[in-house]
This record gives sequence, structure tokens and C-alpha cells, in this order.
Amino acid sequence: MSRPIITLTTDFGTSDSYVAQMKGVILGINPAARIVDVTHAVPPQDVLKGATILDEIIDSFPMRTIHVAVIDPGVGSDRKLVAVEMGNHRFVAPDNGLLSIAARRYPPTRIVSLTNVQFWRSTVSSTFHGRDILAPVAAHWSLGVDAAQFGEELCSLVKLNWAELTREEDCIRGEVTGMDQFGNLATSIPKSWIDLAAAGRTTVECSGRTISGLCTHYAEVDSGELIALFGSSDRLEIAIRNGNAARAISASVGTPVIVRWS
Amino acid sequence: MSRPIITLTTDFGTSDSYVAQMKGVILGINPAARIVDVTHAVPPQDVLKGATILDEIIDSFPMRTIHVAVIDPGVGSDRKLVAVEMGNHRFVAPDNGLLSIAARRYPPTRIVSLTNVQFWRSTVSSTFHGRDILAPVAAHWSLGVDAAQFGEELCSLVKLNWAELTREEDCIRGEVTGMDQFGNLATSIPKSWIDLAAAGRTTVECSGRTISGLCTHYAEVDSGELIALFGSSDRLEIAIRNGNAARAISASVGTPVIVRWS
Amino acid sequence: MSRPIITLTTDFGTSDSYVAQMKGVILGINPAARIVDVTHAVPPQDVLKGATILDEIIDSFPMRTIHVAVIDPGVGSDRKLVAVEMGNHRFVAPDNGLLSIAARRYPPTRIVSLTNVQFWRSTVSSTFHGRDILAPVAAHWSLGVDAAQFGEELCSLVKLNWAELTREEDCIRGEVTGMDQFGNLATSIPKSWIDLAAAGRTTVECSGRTISGLCTHYAEVDSGELIALFGSSDRLEIAIRNGNAARAISASVGTPVIVRWS
Repeated sequence: MSRPIITLTTDFGTSDSYVAQMKGVILGINPAARIVDVTHAVPPQDVLKGATILDEIIDSFPMRTIHVAVIDPGVGSDRKLVAVEMGNHRFVAPDNGLLSIAARRYPPTRIVSLTNVQFWRSTVSSTFHGRDILAPVAAHWSLGVDAAQFGEELCSLVKLNWAELTREEDCIRGEVTGMDQFGNLATSIPKSWIDLAAAGRTTVECSGRTISGLCTHYAEVDSGELIALFGSSDRLEIAIRNGNAARAISASVGTPVIVRWS
Repeated sequence: MSRPIITLTTDFGTSDSYVAQMKGVILGINPAARIVDVTHAVPPQDVLKGATILDEIIDSFPMRTIHVAVIDPGVGSDRKLVAVEMGNHRFVAPDNGLLSIAARRYPPTRIVSLTNVQFWRSTVSSTFHGRDILAPVAAHWSLGVDAAQFGEELCSLVKLNWAELTREEDCIRGEVTGMDQFGNLATSIPKSWIDLAAAGRTTVECSGRTISGLCTHYAEVDSGELIALFGSSDRLEIAIRNGNAARAISASVGTPVIVRWS
Repeated sequence: MSRPIITLTTDFGTSDSYVAQMKGVILGINPAARIVDVTHAVPPQDVLKGATILDEIIDSFPMRTIHVAVIDPGVGSDRKLVAVEMGNHRFVAPDNGLLSIAARRYPPTRIVSLTNVQFWRSTVSSTFHGRDILAPVAAHWSLGVDAAQFGEELCSLVKLNWAELTREEDCIRGEVTGMDQFGNLATSIPKSWIDLAAAGRTTVECSGRTISGLCTHYAEVDSGELIALFGSSDRLEIAIRNGNAARAISASVGTPVIVRWS
């Protein structure tokens, strides 16, 4: 891979120099690396949000892209840092659940604990492992080092208790898992669970409102109308055309969502 | 063009993964593409602001740069997506007026409707054409594909009703078209309309205030003083040295601006 | 240097097109340049914050990286623009104190005033020297031009009055110099000034609170506890594990910090 891609997902914000320091370290080790910012606006220490974002991006990037994620409330504790292969998808992150949503779709094929100091920065601070361990390991990986060299192999990843998602006889129960800046509400309910042949007879309940039927495009309804449709990640989404659904129906992360059909 | 540049201008914000998904798709098709973020902070669905920004940047980028813009309130409606050549400037965007300000200076030499699915992503969502159509078309264009292959040719672009700008016998009437984060007010009045020989005898009226004379540098006046000068895009600008003009004179987008000379 | 790195640190924000215009100019001159954003969220005209950030990043980037900084309240005045070598570290910036913190650790080995218009953009605005002078000079420098060609040599840089830092018989007096988005407080007190053998007998006073002892990891204490430790830039830092120290103790930039030992 002559133009290796390394993506960065953190809760560092973009006002401080932390992200740039990580990029400097990566480019110092592999000058050919192509660095792509995913987001640095994960709310501080919000591992669930970080995990959701990693799950959203993997299918858009080329195979062998290395995704580095640093949402690390446990820095300095005994939490492990890991390099993980899920088939051809690659991750470098703390083992605190950040990778557990992606891992539901792509079971890990190799998990390595980053214990080999040979691939760390020469001096390691106690507070910034993103720069001193994760960034250099990702850079060495992008140079072609075999992940097995980074440390000892592990059997499993830490799991995260993710959003509710259950199927009952006459309904699916999920919840709101996020909202974007337009106020569109993402849910935990995958398209594959829904009987599309019954789309016209389906209702979606959320925050005391009931939406009848599923749309395929925003443009099917008038401005201001509340709709349910499948978002770009193939999960059920609740939106208002040209409006802010989260605000309009007072829903937020954790609000229950129920899909019924008749 | 061995190092093709693709710029991105959107209203997606940088908290979500949308922008990164577009970059992943682009790099998957053309690993040599160099992606430059213009801004992702266009206010949601603010086509006018997006159009202004595209007009501001084109002269700074090398010829053949491909500018991708996604401010797309009509996603899923029958609005068209287009690839446009304005001489050596290239754009990929929804045809909703986003390109109409740039097109006043650089009349389009080719407009193509993006109907050829061969250059789309293999699966196309109904809500994220930025990732599924615009990004892959831009990436293929950057590989050297002739734009004629993207679809059928169109005759004209959708136009936007832009800010007022009229010349009367004794004055020019324009309006505030934007403000930057320093509070400097951009206007619709181009430098070329103003008789610079009469700069000393010129007054600028805005929000009940009258400014005498035109400056060429902030540093000509004391801190806190209101001035009119030409901004970096060669349009009249109203500013306060070391202060926030928008706040000080309560002006905002749409506030009338009148230039008179005696 | 076949893949020259140019970093950008500004107070332009990311809502406007200013940063993108600078990038377009750089890539037009050196298509091989690799541009890294450090931050564009320096508070408007906050030269001290910009200077602190430049000091934080230099050790993470490869030698010969060119750091461009544009926090320039004096644009259009007689302040100089400079290209500076500090050994193998390179900077292009206004000479207003922006480089003076880095220069305390890496004394300048060459300072050049950017007076040679041959390396400027062909038309230079009076308000945007970042795009019209600093960006093109940095791009030419990255192509291998000798800095001596950019203009006449200067003897010294403008200095900034930086945060208090004094050593008395029984204490060190410094102050808070910044806070990150987690609320961790950076101080002016370097690790090298502190007798680590006496860490257990050390107290840190800030904003009416006294912290006993120095930690090496956040994880040494319970959630919510106030601690002093060395941050990733080897300066004393005050933090709360899983909390926001700035808010909890009402400290901000300029708040005195005293280290004592018994």
C-alpha cells in the first residue's frame, strides 16, 4: 500500500494542538501517510459516540485503511491499547469499548496489545498515549510492519453496552443513538430488521409522536412534516423536512423508538 | 494532472462522520487525490453562503482543481446534480444556485447532469448523494474522465437571487452579504464600481452610520474606529480596527449599504 | 525534502474561506506540499495563545517542517513579516511575538524580513498578508529556495511578555497559561524546575486550593479529585480526574500558581 491512509477520531477538539502533535509524529515515521480527520468533536470521554462513528465510516474507506481512535478516559490506568484487524479493516485504539460496535458487524480476526516499546515514541508521557503510543504504532503499521510485532495477542475486546434493540412479536424496540447537526435522529434499528413489504402499514413511535409509514426521500413530504426513513448508514432515522426533529419532538440519545406494523 | 486537488464545501459540520465518509469514497477511487476542506460550517441549507464561499476561493486554487459543494436542501427531490466547467475551473454540486455567483464572473463552458450511474457509488442512499454521487463523480473526474461521460449536457444553471447591487446617478446601492468571525462586514459592492480617484470624497452609509473616506489599511486609523476599505476579495468591506463592526453597528446579512461621492 | 510539510496556525476560524485560500495558494506554487492544520481557533488576535501553541508542536514534527502562523492584529501597519530558522525548525509569521516562546528554547539562527516581492503573490491585498505573502513564501521555501533570498536579515525578534515564572528560596511562582477543552489547566512551570525527589513533600497552590503531592497519572486518584501532574508538554498541569478543573476551582489564564516544598 504505497499511499496508506490513517484516519483520526478523537475527543480533543480543534482548539488545542493535540491533534497536530499526533499528525507530526505520524509524518515523522511515515512521510507518505495520508491522514484524514474523521472528527475531533466527540464529546469528551463519550466512548459510545466514538464507537458509533467508527462503525459509520468503515464501509466508506478503502481496505487496509488504519483507523486511529482516541477517546480514552482511562489513560494512565491499566486499560490496554490495541491494534485490531477485522478482516481488512484496521484499528488502533484503547480497549474500552470503542471498537465494539464495529466488531458486531466485523468480528475481529486479530487483537494485539500494544506492549512492544520498540514501536512507541522514544519518550512516553503519562497523559498523552494518543501521541506517544497510538500514533507511532499506526505509522509503523502503515509502513508494513506485521501487527503481531506490536505485542502479545489477546482473545477478545472489551464490550460496550450499546443501545437497546429487541424484536418482539408485534414490534421492534430500539432507541435514539445520536443526532446530527440538522437535528435528524439516528436510531439503533437496522433496515434489515424491517419488513419493507409492509412499509405502508408500519408506524414509528418516538417521544409521544406516531409516524405512519416509511418514506424513502425527504422530498416525499411537505416542509416541516415529521417522517421516518432509512439514513445513509441503513438504520431507521427520524427527521423533519427542512426542520430540526430533535428539537421539535424533544428527543435525544436514549429516547425509546418503537416500530409496529399492522 | 498527477496530484489532482478536490476541495469540499458543505453544511455538514465536523461533529458527524459525513465529511469523512465522502473522503473515504474519493480516496477509494483515486488514491492520489489531494483533498482540501474549504469549510463544513456553512449554516444548514444556506445556499447563498455556500455560493459566496465558492466565489471567494476559485482564484486562489490552481486551474483544474475540482470544487465539490454539498449544500443540498433538495436531496431526494428532482433537483439535478451537475458537473460544471467554467473555463478551467471545475465544480460538482447540486444545481440549486450554489454555482451561480461564481458563474457571474466565469460563465459556464460546459454543464453536465450527473445521470450516468456508471460513475456513482454501487449503492446509492436516498439521503446522502454527497457521498454516493458527487464524491465518486469528482474522484473519477480527477482521474481524467471526460465530463461529457457523466451524463447529458444542460444549457444553463439555476440562478440565485443574490444581494442587491445597483448603480444610480449619485450613488451605488448594495448590501451586507456576510460577516467573518472578526465581525468584518462583507458587501456586494465591487472595487471596480468605485471611482478610486474620488476615494477621499466618498462616504459609505450602513445601519445609520456614515463613514467618510476609504482606507487602504486597518492601521490607518486608531483602535476602535469604524472604516470602509476593500477586502481580500476586492469588494467593499466595513470594519473596526481591533473591534467587531457587525456588533458595534448592529449590521447583518441584508443590511443596505450605500456609497456616495461628492 | 521531497514531501515538505507546511503547518498552519491561525485565528481565522473554519467558517470562512480564508484558510482554504491560503492552501490554494500554497498548492499552486508547490503541488507536493503536505499541509497540516494545527488550529484555526486561536481566539482573534490572541498572539500569546498562538505563541504557546507553536511552542507545543515543534517537537512533534519532523525537522525542516515549515510552520506558518497568522495571528496578525498589525496587518497593514509597519510590523514586519519574517522567515525564521531555529536550527532545523522553520517558521513564517508576523514578527509580533508569535515566535518568542519557541525562541526561548530554540534561539533563532536566522531571521529574514520578507521584503523580496519576487516571492509574494502577484497582487497583494492590504488586509490578507497570510494569503498574499506568508503562504507563497512558505511554499517557495518548501521548494528549496534559500531563506536568505526572501529579504534582508534581521538581528532579533519582537519579544512577548509571557507568563510570570520566578524561583524564590522556598517556592516557584508561575501562572496558568491556558486550558484545554477538558478543563485541564496548563501552567508556566517547567518540570525541570521541580525537585522530583521531593515530589511527595510538594504542595501546589492555585485559586485558594492547595494540592498535596504530585501525581504521575490521572488514574492514581479517584474520579473528581483535584491533582497536579506533568502534562504532555512537560509543564505542571492541574486537573480533575474525569472532571473540569478550570470550572471547579474558578481558575483561568493568569491565575497565580505557587509550588512549595517542605
